[in-house]
Amino acid sequence: MDQSLQNLLDKEQQQLNNALTSYIKTLDIPDRLRESVLYSIEAGGKRLRPLLMKLTCTGLGGDQEKVYPAAVALEMIHTYSLIHDDLPAMDDDTYRRGQLTNHKKFDEATAILAGDGLLTNSFHVITTSNLYTDQEKVSIITKLSKASGLEGMVAGQYLDMEAENQTISISNLERIHHLKTGRLISFAVEIGGYLAGASLEKMETLKKFGDYLGIIFQIQDDILDIEGDQEIIGKRVGSDVDNEKSTYPSILGLEGAKQYKTKYVKEAGRCLQNVGLENTDLALISSYLSERNQ
Amino acid sequence: MDQSLQNLLDKEQQQLNNALTSYIKTLDIPDRLRESVLYSIEAGGKRLRPLLMKLTCTGLGGDQEKVYPAAVALEMIHTYSLIHDDLPAMDDDTYRRGQLTNHKKFDEATAILAGDGLLTNSFHVITTSNLYTDQEKVSIITKLSKASGLEGMVAGQYLDMEAENQTISISNLERIHHLKTGRLISFAVEIGGYLAGASLEKMETLKKFGDYLGIIFQIQDDILDIEGDQEIIGKRVGSDVDNEKSTYPSILGLEGAKQYKTKYVKEAGRCLQNVGLENTDLALISSYLSERNQ
Repeated sequence: MDQSLQNLLDKEQQQLNNALTSYIKTLDIPDRLRESVLYSIEAGGKRLRPLLMKLTCTGLGGDQEKVYPAAVALEMIHTYSLIHDDLPAMDDDTYRRGQLTNHKKFDEATAILAGDGLLTNSFHVITTSNLYTDQEKVSIITKLSKASGLEGMVAGQYLDMEAENQTISISNLERIHHLKTGRLISFAVEIGGYLAGASLEKMETLKKFGDYLGIIFQIQDDILDIEGDQEIIGKRVGSDVDNEKSTYPSILGLEGAKQYKTKYVKEAGRCLQNVGLENTDLALISSYLSERNQ
Repeated sequence: MDQSLQNLLDKEQQQLNNALTSYIKTLDIPDRLRESVLYSIEAGGKRLRPLLMKLTCTGLGGDQEKVYPAAVALEMIHTYSLIHDDLPAMDDDTYRRGQLTNHKKFDEATAILAGDGLLTNSFHVITTSNLYTDQEKVSIITKLSKASGLEGMVAGQYLDMEAENQTISISNLERIHHLKTGRLISFAVEIGGYLAGASLEKMETLKKFGDYLGIIFQIQDDILDIEGDQEIIGKRVGSDVDNEKSTYPSILGLEGAKQYKTKYVKEAGRCLQNVGLENTDLALISSYLSERNQ
């Protein structure tokens, strides 16, 4: 990974983790449930979405402090979705990021409740923040609940499962990942723009940029499941083939998938140009997403 | 059941069901996921919480129309919690209200996602309503997410599971049910008061009233698990003893539990007097909750 991007990610990770754990620590939660919540929160990940939100906001002249409550809420929702996705009834995963999944470390019931709680309290983070006006709170929650709910991420996860053991078209695959991954990434950049006071037109372009990033992310995920190094990724490789999942490489072939990805990297770059952000670290992120090895 | 209360419940059920299904139908949800959501929504139940909200609001001079979005959100959260509580990893129930539980009718993954989606979209219902100011939306979501999240209902469900096969004190039992059942009932009456412009002092008394109703509801639930008629209740009787659960009767004895309940019915009555609602249908509801056979 490019060193300056690595530095950015490290710094952002720390700030976001602090904001997240500070919030959780204000809450009165039964001990083991709190442990379970913090376990998945601290398992962390790259905090890519918060970084996208922040870079978009600051790139457009906004105040970076205003990003935190929305970014914390977003990461809480992202974290809940991983906990639930890993459950035996869903993807049945034992490891995530090299650590036991929440239900393996604790138990299924605790994992379900930790997820439910993170989801519920993500909205509480927004409404109790003193950095937003009421109007901003309402806008953020409207967008966040739409992006992650029955018409968004939840629908995407449902369609993804439904598509298992089936051959689907590239447009269906794209719809699934648009919902499952793209909507939250889009939310990140859209809210980054919103908090910087971007015009509706710019926000539309930012949403598209987020969508493209989601697709790039997913294609690379599929490629890593074929070419990746299990040790580096921290989870089992080859599970898509084992589960007979439709992926970009299974539909387009490995080379075809790579070309398809390149096309979207270019589209993403064009969006950044349109909003005047082509010379910011956001450009670095889209190449990173396209070339990452974990 | 008292005929006038039955009429009230029937009327409220229908209005609430209409509001709920109208909202769900505005959403673009994958077919089978939508079916699963509607299955549990339409399995319905008594819609007691919306009725409490409405009666409190109108009793204090508020506009009943304003109750609907908050009541719809509340029922969506109540419904999600039942779907998740019934899961194999949680209470592992096959029937609810005489019908197959969601995961038995569909499958576990669909049930988890239907629950997640109902929870997420409950906040979307509030923010997109045109009946509330932004300030009202923020207040309602703050209270709703607190009542149902990591410090509220989710904590209660967690503690309830943790207490299985254990003998606990009456104060611990009360804490569990305060969180698991009481918080959402309290929310209903508190928001009813809020939407009618009640003073903070009145809102505090209303919250207490809701808490007492929650306890009364739970004691009667425990009693029905011993004395109830399986055909009328629509679920298996005797499961608390089988699961070695601590209940009011297991701690206080059956007669002791009944006396305890009577004490709370009186307390609830006193709260109603303090806010000037003693001659409304809210009084009917607290006797109904105490004496219901289903």
